Parts: sequence; structure tokens; C-alpha cells
Amino acid sequence: MVRTGAAARPTLAVIAREARVSVPTASKVVNGREDVAPETRRRVTEVLDRLGYVRRPRGAAVPVPSLVDVVVHSLSSSWTAAVLHGVEAAADGAGLDVVVSAGLARSRGCGPDRGRLQRLALRGTAGVIFSMAELTRSQYAWLEQHRIPFVLIDPVVEPPPRVISVGADNVGGGTSATGHLLALGHRRIAFIGGHRHALCGRDRLEGHRSALAEAGVPNRQAYEKYGRFSTAEARDRALELLDLPEPPTAVFVCSDTMALGVYEAAAARGLRIPDDLSVVGFDDLPEARWATPALTTVRQPLSDMSATGLRLLVRLMEGDRPDTAFTELPTRLIVRASTAPPRP
Amino acid sequence: MVRTGAAARPTLAVIAREARVSVPTASKVVNGREDVAPETRRRVTEVLDRLGYVRRPRGAAVPVPSLVDVVVHSLSSSWTAAVLHGVEAAADGAGLDVVVSAGLARSRGCGPDRGRLQRLALRGTAGVIFSMAELTRSQYAWLEQHRIPFVLIDPVVEPPPRVISVGADNVGGGTSATGHLLALGHRRIAFIGGHRHALCGRDRLEGHRSALAEAGVPNRQAYEKYGRFSTAEARDRALELLDLPEPPTAVFVCSDTMALGVYEAAAARGLRIPDDLSVVGFDDLPEARWATPALTTVRQPLSDMSATGLRLLVRLMEGDRPDTAFTELPTRLIVRASTAPPRP
Repeated sequence: MVRTGAAARPTLAVIAREARVSVPTASKVVNGREDVAPETRRRVTEVLDRLGYVRRPRGAAVPVPSLVDVVVHSLSSSWTAAVLHGVEAAADGAGLDVVVSAGLARSRGCGPDRGRLQRLALRGTAGVIFSMAELTRSQYAWLEQHRIPFVLIDPVVEPPPRVISVGADNVGGGTSATGHLLALGHRRIAFIGGHRHALCGRDRLEGHRSALAEAGVPNRQAYEKYGRFSTAEARDRALELLDLPEPPTAVFVCSDTMALGVYEAAAARGLRIPDDLSVVGFDDLPEARWATPALTTVRQPLSDMSATGLRLLVRLMEGDRPDTAFTELPTRLIVRASTAPPRP
Repeated sequence: MVRTGAAARPTLAVIAREARVSVPTASKVVNGREDVAPETRRRVTEVLDRLGYVRRPRGAAVPVPSLVDVVVHSLSSSWTAAVLHGVEAAADGAGLDVVVSAGLARSRGCGPDRGRLQRLALRGTAGVIFSMAELTRSQYAWLEQHRIPFVLIDPVVEPPPRVISVGADNVGGGTSATGHLLALGHRRIAFIGGHRHALCGRDRLEGHRSALAEAGVPNRQAYEKYGRFSTAEARDRALELLDLPEPPTAVFVCSDTMALGVYEAAAARGLRIPDDLSVVGFDDLPEARWATPALTTVRQPLSDMSATGLRLLVRLMEGDRPDTAFTELPTRLIVRASTAPPRP
């Protein structure tokens, strides 16, 4: 069980040095390619045997997998877990390996920091998926200049026209959430968004407002709040709503995480869900199942979105260009136990 | 915004070919090393400029980051999210990038499949973290033979003596869970484990039994069940327990996910938590916060465990050997609202 240091492990570079060939040549021999001189092949094979390098099984070529990068905000969220799940499964199907980094969280804005991008480029990344990123104009230019294919999943703001991105039908999701509450008989329906400027929040608000307009229910400015996707902030915003002279009887809140804050606010005011207050969330994270009562929410297919993003990235890597820059996947209302007709 | 295919992107191999030098030489120039002939450096620099390769900032060397692998069961769990969070943060601190794969889930047993291991080795992985894996003897031998440093996080079964692993104090966690229930006055305390053969379950059961023994409370075979870490199975086992002629007044259940099943079983039998049944979980996943009442549980420091694993892996990669094969991190009882004294 004795292990040696990294320098002694037979990477392609080590093999190449030991056999006095270039790395591409060493790679050819490892991958069973034919276009290598017999004497060169003999030298490389000898080194492979000596250093215990992985031999290709049954003579078949085993290409070294390319690496794609996924850059996210934080790895410790079930949101990111769903995104990674989709990317990794699709990448495995395409013979690609996935490098993950929480580069967005460590930068100041919502874009990756320059050092992170340079690392990807130096490593020769085959392509990058950015989840919920907000890239600057110079970062787009940088990626372009270094010819790094990339796809945005759920971009925070509108990307430049030709950038490839994947998102959910947020307008439709907002419409179905508020439409469900209207159908139950609610007329005083509040909205708690994430970030005011974020694309997803803007679209969900648009869906909410259009459902109200269609039902002839006037929209009230006092019923529109923003909770920065935080449970604690959503709790505070919900308390403000519940303390209004004419409080809402229902709240459509733009994430499951924030819905938990609305539950806390209702409990703090002695209100029962759904008897005294109906709540609709957004996302359908696994946590929604833990809530009591179980949360009615709008499901966005995070794993499908990220798997779709990976497949689009592969097309870009192959020099192909998808016809449409933005791919939108459908959302779906999941009715559980947190919504009911308003008290008469 | 025109992108070209992967072949046109300037990887080190492409630079080397274009400049008619070896990849190690191209790498030296990119990384600002001195031991390169001026004419060779000029040729490589010219190609770098032409292909828009990443230039090292302000003359400082930017080494290409090494890749470590994390192999997990499934990426769509908050358990894995916590593990990845710890690994990635520690890896970033060490200048390493992290490749993730759900290789364990796609294999038949709990070990990685052979193809997965070969991919890692072909890519020249710097080292591997296996989370909750159950490696076979031949897989240990294979890793050894290929001189791939590796560390196990929370190994399912006892690893061979010299294998480096990190886990939580499961015996202590079990003792504190059942000790808490005993201190509340419970005497009929059931145990629902995950897998009968798993190391963590065995240790938590040992802690549970020793707490009972210390309090002079006889252990009943009928009170020991296994729920394979599944919410649905735990629900079924809890229903069996609640339907016993003398049902338990408290349950210590070996994961938060299974605790949710116990909540469901209690609700199905019209029992209130904690008034009619006290429940203690294990893990302290973010979901525990969503439960109503909030779950009393034993916190295991998953992110710390995996960050510790990464740091131990770096030592192995550097040819150093930790003094102890197994590093155990403390667990801690988090008392919330799911436990109370038994009804008189």
C-alpha cells in the first residue's frame, strides 16, 4: 500500500518525457492509433509497462475524455445539485468529464472572476456551462477571444443576442401560479420576487400581472415585494404584507426557499396555511416535500435544463451552431397542500 | 460571436504542434519558466499571440491546475452537495480543480466501475476522493498498481488497514441521540438504521445500545429496524414499530431523510410529534430545517469531513503519509422541536 508522490505518477507528460517522444505521440500510442513508427511505439509501450500505465482494454482505443467546466454560485444548495445531476449525466453520455467550481460565489459580482477564467483556459477546457451567471461585456469578449464554447443556464440578465442559453418558461410559470390562486377565488394576491433586476423574476412577475389583468383584478404596488432568494428576507417581506391594513389572502413567492420564509411569517402571526393564507412557490426543490403542509409550487426542470445545456455545448464544441440562441423548457404547476380557497 | 470547434481551440497540444515544440516546452513558456532557448520561446510566444492563448498576468507564472476527482453515488442529494462544497473549497485553496462523477450510482455494487477508474487514470488524475464507496479488493489493488492517491470519505465498510479515510464519530452520535431521549424520560426507544452491514449504521447502533445499557434499559430486538436510507422504507418500518403491542415512545433514526418517513408514519397513525412520539435524526441536512416540527438531529460535519479528506489527499499527492489512517471528526446533537418527555 505504498504510494508515491504526484511527480512519479505516469501522466501522459511523464510517459512522453521518459520515452523521449512528444505528448501527442505518447497519447497516440496509449489510444491505440496506427500512425506511430514501430520503434517509437516500442519505446512508449516499454515506458507504459515500466510505470504501470493504464493499458487500453482488449485492444480498443480508450480516448482520454475531454473536460467541460460547470461554474456555479455555491455547491451547497439543492438547486446546484439538480443542475450538476443533469450536466454530469449528459456529459457521461457524451464521454466528457465535468469540472465543477463555485467561481461565481467567490467573485464580487455575479460573473466569474478573471483568475477562474484563466485557469479554465490554461487547462484547455472543452467548454463551459455557467449556471445563473451574470457575465460582463468584457467576460463575453474574453471567452470569445479565447474561443471557449460556453452555454448559460438560467442567465440572470439578458445575454448578448448570439449567446446560447437555456431557461424555463418563467412567464408561463408565473401565470399558472397566480391563475391557480385566482381560480381558487383569491383576489388579494401578493408577489414576492427574488432580485428586482433578474430576468427570471421579471418574467415571473409578468406572468403574475398578466394573470391578474386577464381576471380583471387590479394589481396593487403594495403587494409586490422582493426577497433576494433568502428565507429570512422573504419572511420579513411576508410580515410586511401580513401587517398591511388589507393583507393578501395568498402569496406567490418566486422560490421554494423563500416560501419557507412565508411559512415562518404565517406562523409568527398565528395564521394557518392554507386556511388563512395560501402559498405558491417556485422551483420544486426536494425541500418542498419536507414542508408542512406540502408546498404547491411551479416546477422548473433544472436537471433537464442543464442536460440540454450540456448537449448544446457539445454542438458548439463540434463547431456546429444551434439555430436558436435561447431554448426554453416548460414549467408545470404542482398542486399540493399549501393552497385553498380564501375564507368567505 | 463566431465560435469554432474544439479542434481549433488553443490547447497546449495545439500550441506545441503549431510552434513545433513538445508540450512540456510549450507549457514552460506559458508558465514563464526560464529554461527555454530564446528562439524556442519566440516561436511559442508567436503562436500564443496568433491563437489568442491566455497570457500569464504581469509576468507571474500561472501553473496549469491539477485535477482531483470526486466520485459519489448521486449528484442530486443535499448530502453530496455538502460533500462537494467542502472538497471544492479546500481544492480551490490548494490550486486544484475538481472533477465530479456519479460513478458509484452507475455501477452494480457500491464501488466505481472499471471503466470509470480507467478514465480517471488515462486523464492522469492527481488523486481521487470516494464518498460513501464500497471498493472491492481488486479495486484497491488497481488503484495501488496505478499509483493513484485516494481518500475515502465515510467508507461504507472497513477499508484495508493503510487506506486513508475520514468519517464522523458515529458511536458518539448514537450515544448522544439515545442519551438525549433517555434524559427526557423515554424508556421505549426504537432504532431505525440504514443498511445493516454499513459501518456508520453499525457504529450508531453501538452508540444507541451503549446509552441504553448505561441507563440500565434493556434493549429489545423488536425495536431495531433498518430502512436503507429511504424515506418510504423508514415510513414502513416506523409503521411496524407503532403497530407493536407496546410501541416505542421515541425513535432514533439514522438519517434525516429517513426521519421524514417517521414523520409520515406518525401522521398516518394520528400521532403528534413530539407529544406522542419523539424523533431524533442524523446528519443535519438543510432539509431538517424544513420539517415541522423542526427535527432534533445529530450533526455530522460533511463539508469539514470532505475538506479534511481533500487536504489528506494533497499530502498523499506530495508523497507524504498521514500518521493515522482514519481521521474521525466529532458529531453534535442539535436539539430542535421533535423531542419532548414521554406522555405520563
